[in-house]
Amino acid sequence: MSEMFSNRILNTKKSFIREILKVTQNKEVISFAGGLPNPISFPIEALKTSMNRVVDENGSNAFQYATTEGYLPLREQIATRYKKRFGLEVSPNDILITSGSQQALDLIGKALINKDDHILIEKPGYLGTIQALSLYEPQFHGINLLEDGLDIQSLEAALKAYAPKLLYTVPNFQNPTGLTYSKEKREAICELLKTTSTYLIEDDPYGELRFSGEDLPYIGSRGLEHSILLGSFSKIVTPGMRIGWICTKDSKLMDKLIIAKQASDLHTNFFSQCVISDYLAHNDLDEHIRKIKSLYKEQSSAMVNAIKTYFPGNIQITIPEGGMFLWATLPEGTSSLELFDLASKENVAFVPGEPFYTEELTSRTFRLNYTNSDSETIEEGIKRLAKVIKNR
Amino acid sequence: MSEMFSNRILNTKKSFIREILKVTQNKEVISFAGGLPNPISFPIEALKTSMNRVVDENGSNAFQYATTEGYLPLREQIATRYKKRFGLEVSPNDILITSGSQQALDLIGKALINKDDHILIEKPGYLGTIQALSLYEPQFHGINLLEDGLDIQSLEAALKAYAPKLLYTVPNFQNPTGLTYSKEKREAICELLKTTSTYLIEDDPYGELRFSGEDLPYIGSRGLEHSILLGSFSKIVTPGMRIGWICTKDSKLMDKLIIAKQASDLHTNFFSQCVISDYLAHNDLDEHIRKIKSLYKEQSSAMVNAIKTYFPGNIQITIPEGGMFLWATLPEGTSSLELFDLASKENVAFVPGEPFYTEELTSRTFRLNYTNSDSETIEEGIKRLAKVIKNR
Repeated sequence: MSEMFSNRILNTKKSFIREILKVTQNKEVISFAGGLPNPISFPIEALKTSMNRVVDENGSNAFQYATTEGYLPLREQIATRYKKRFGLEVSPNDILITSGSQQALDLIGKALINKDDHILIEKPGYLGTIQALSLYEPQFHGINLLEDGLDIQSLEAALKAYAPKLLYTVPNFQNPTGLTYSKEKREAICELLKTTSTYLIEDDPYGELRFSGEDLPYIGSRGLEHSILLGSFSKIVTPGMRIGWICTKDSKLMDKLIIAKQASDLHTNFFSQCVISDYLAHNDLDEHIRKIKSLYKEQSSAMVNAIKTYFPGNIQITIPEGGMFLWATLPEGTSSLELFDLASKENVAFVPGEPFYTEELTSRTFRLNYTNSDSETIEEGIKRLAKVIKNR
Repeated sequence: MSEMFSNRILNTKKSFIREILKVTQNKEVISFAGGLPNPISFPIEALKTSMNRVVDENGSNAFQYATTEGYLPLREQIATRYKKRFGLEVSPNDILITSGSQQALDLIGKALINKDDHILIEKPGYLGTIQALSLYEPQFHGINLLEDGLDIQSLEAALKAYAPKLLYTVPNFQNPTGLTYSKEKREAICELLKTTSTYLIEDDPYGELRFSGEDLPYIGSRGLEHSILLGSFSKIVTPGMRIGWICTKDSKLMDKLIIAKQASDLHTNFFSQCVISDYLAHNDLDEHIRKIKSLYKEQSSAMVNAIKTYFPGNIQITIPEGGMFLWATLPEGTSSLELFDLASKENVAFVPGEPFYTEELTSRTFRLNYTNSDSETIEEGIKRLAKVIKNR
């Protein structure tokens, strides 16, 4: 009786990455498909020490129901880090702890989107966002992502044409392309948005993982009223504990997000919030992040070099300055979905471009992840993929 | 610019209990308002042992991203427990781990409810459910809850009149009333629902906490196709880790719930799932639950006895057979909200009836929690409340 389901769920696709997982669970397969951090980057012993300390120092309090907004010391630590990194004046009241930053997208959808509201997203854009916001049945409009950020002319035209509810961006090492917005683009986007009432989401799970170039200020940090930052400990401490956050100085919005959070799961896992907070208080996060960046720099170089060595010259790739992904474009007339099927037979996997677009299309692009394989495995995988490309 | 918010969030109230928390954070106040388990019931040392074992045995795997459905060994343990307690044939594939059972309500809303769909809920009903499902903008219809369960005639009439999408129940030690459905009522409700396509939710966070009488079979266990059970470790192990679950043998529904879960937060905190699973594998949960039940039996008796001793005779109360709450009814013409304000001044708190109803009304009922205070504190709190009632 499928007619019993909601329209929203009938119009929301299963994640393509989920389906791919079935292929990649075979141990023979070299997978560049997922978005997994390298497990050697998890500070396991330090987290173990922290969890014991949390139990010893807090006893039953660490196991009880807690506030919806999140653990105050953790919110203070996050606020302090924004101040330290970017000079941003953020109060703990501007921070809401979420069950991973995926939940942040759901809460924003709940608080802002009415059916058929217009929203803007990078083209290509993060598939988890497309999925999360699809449940609120908006009209998506993709804005082309260029080497240095969104296409400003298209953005300006779309802001005028649609008066969109929100614009979703990943300005640092974007998912799926690995591209980063330039300082100039950030400023231009901010100035444009100031003339509208459109909310800006800057989703920044990878921002700490810059292994070349310099940190750039957030788009919204130039005094944009409806500015929302999303952050996460998934890529710098551990993803399994699902601790992310929303940061916004728009207190009316924060009020609505708290109601949405309360209705959605009351509060985020409190024990894990305490553990992460204790970890931050007793360890040098910067030092830990330096190690992850050095690791990912090596792995990204291994992938870029292998591609330059083995791929045909007519395949374009992005060169990431940080994060976890690069983006490849096949020659015109080639289908990356077809390539995916051929590659599966050679035991190498990636994510074809299709699920990163909000419209139906045949894509000649694909996403490669380099963080979850060592350099040798990366070279072997790229060799396999090159063979498939040349023989197709 | 409030017009930017979604209609759904504008029509969803902040939790009344949240507001009450402001009053009850004052240490002078004796609070019967919350729904907190007694912290002395948390198996802290055993959980500490489990978390260390999880780290030692699983290493980085316990900290990585994980599957949306949940940790397979934990789902097997939950399935086995349904088999042991009720003879139910449940497979791990029928179990989806959620971020507390509050999230289960959100996922069900996502998967099933279109705007203006009709849904039935106990009157009075659990306010967290009213809040969670309000976000999906249904038409609520309350069905009177009698001493032995729903009013069958009203239920039958509402099923005919509205062809509702779902019926929400808490058949064991209901929140807010503490009432339990009789075996006969359960059977009658199941037979009625079999003639419809209405989904049945049986939310059962307290079912394990029966301190008098005998366990009764679930309403849906008599072969109801669209049957959904919700469960939680919050009241038997720890609420702070937010581990709950949805159990349904309706595989088409499960498929949609998994999409909704993926979009909402990818998966539930994986480390905590591993810890709870390890705890269950290495400890006698039944023995632990016996201790909690003995504690709550004593505390509930303390409250019932204090009420009989100190309250005026014209106040009716329910006598719970388990769970965490009892329900009081003041004489006609009395407002429990007014009583709440007076009681606050005497440093004693409870939850007035209003937020447990989906329609606007003036209530002469209120909910009392007995699990989070010792017997002496309960007696002192009831004395204070009795004084307020007599002097008003």
